[in-house]
Amino acid sequence: MPAAVAGPEIERLIQLLARLPGLGPRSARRAALHLIKKRELLMQPLASALGTALEKIAICRVCGNIDTQNPCTVCTDQNRDPAVIVVVADVADLWALERANAINARYHVLGGTLSPLDGIGPQDLTIDALITRAYADAVTEVILALNATVDGQTTAHYITDLLQSAHVKVTRLAHGVPVGGELDYLDEGTLAAAIRQRTLF
Amino acid sequence: MPAAVAGPEIERLIQLLARLPGLGPRSARRAALHLIKKRELLMQPLASALGTALEKIAICRVCGNIDTQNPCTVCTDQNRDPAVIVVVADVADLWALERANAINARYHVLGGTLSPLDGIGPQDLTIDALITRAYADAVTEVILALNATVDGQTTAHYITDLLQSAHVKVTRLAHGVPVGGELDYLDEGTLAAAIRQRTLF
Repeated sequence: MPAAVAGPEIERLIQLLARLPGLGPRSARRAALHLIKKRELLMQPLASALGTALEKIAICRVCGNIDTQNPCTVCTDQNRDPAVIVVVADVADLWALERANAINARYHVLGGTLSPLDGIGPQDLTIDALITRAYADAVTEVILALNATVDGQTTAHYITDLLQSAHVKVTRLAHGVPVGGELDYLDEGTLAAAIRQRTLF
Repeated sequence: MPAAVAGPEIERLIQLLARLPGLGPRSARRAALHLIKKRELLMQPLASALGTALEKIAICRVCGNIDTQNPCTVCTDQNRDPAVIVVVADVADLWALERANAINARYHVLGGTLSPLDGIGPQDLTIDALITRAYADAVTEVILALNATVDGQTTAHYITDLLQSAHVKVTRLAHGVPVGGELDYLDEGTLAAAIRQRTLF
């Protein structure tokens, strides 16, 4: 849309919406128009929800989860087993496992996986913090719930090596996860099966 | 995502994003996570762009365009031919024609098309305002740039009947527009051809 037709404010809104995953330039225009038409029902609530999120959302200092309290709801939940840490690459994976209701444990979000090609090394992830947590007396098992990709498995091997001398059992997800697949796209049944059939690494 | 894992604020943000066209529940979750991760680069600017839009965007009282000034940039543009009114169903169609750089005229946004099945009658559209504009002395042509669908063509016939006694030429887009197609999805070349080859209605 040329800036001359509708003001630069609308153009700016479209450009920002186009940067959301799943929306391209054309669908961002449609989304912007939809917002403008549903001003009271959608645009106003979305603006206010974003404002609230900006104000309240924080990264959990223990596990890296995203929440409105810090430490997060999962870390402070007394009904969860503190002896088991589920290691995930991304918050989306944590949410996927919680949707599957797969395990009642704590999590650790790495913030990605090791990827030499992309220049992502151990110092770019929260691996140090994970090792510190895993060496604590109370922890008995670390479940590596990482993507079944080369980068995910490289990361799993790297962490396993670092945990050699810790008194924890290191497990990985069962091969219910399709090779090459990503956790966030799986159905709850597959995720739950993969947690149940986890094997020694 | 269960509300217990991440706060209700995040859940609310996801629900609102899922109501944008093009985003489902799952992609809305990904979009929300993307926003939270790109807090400074995307979430803050988007919140502020929505705030600005809420404050400034108005519906043009002359043509129904969406803009930050009222009457809109198109209606106040002295370089546009005031003798020609291009009638479109939706603002998205106006934007599509402007992207095609198809014609240097004024517009009239109907706000939809007649659709007896959906209970949309003439009183739900801005047809009265269009007729008033078309009967003004300065206007010589009304171009009906409506979708090549049953509803669009019904609307075109309805408007043409009302303009019988007005001294204006009523034209429609050339059949470069694929039958059954919607304007907003067409490429610029097809739209420009359709404007150039418009025929007497």
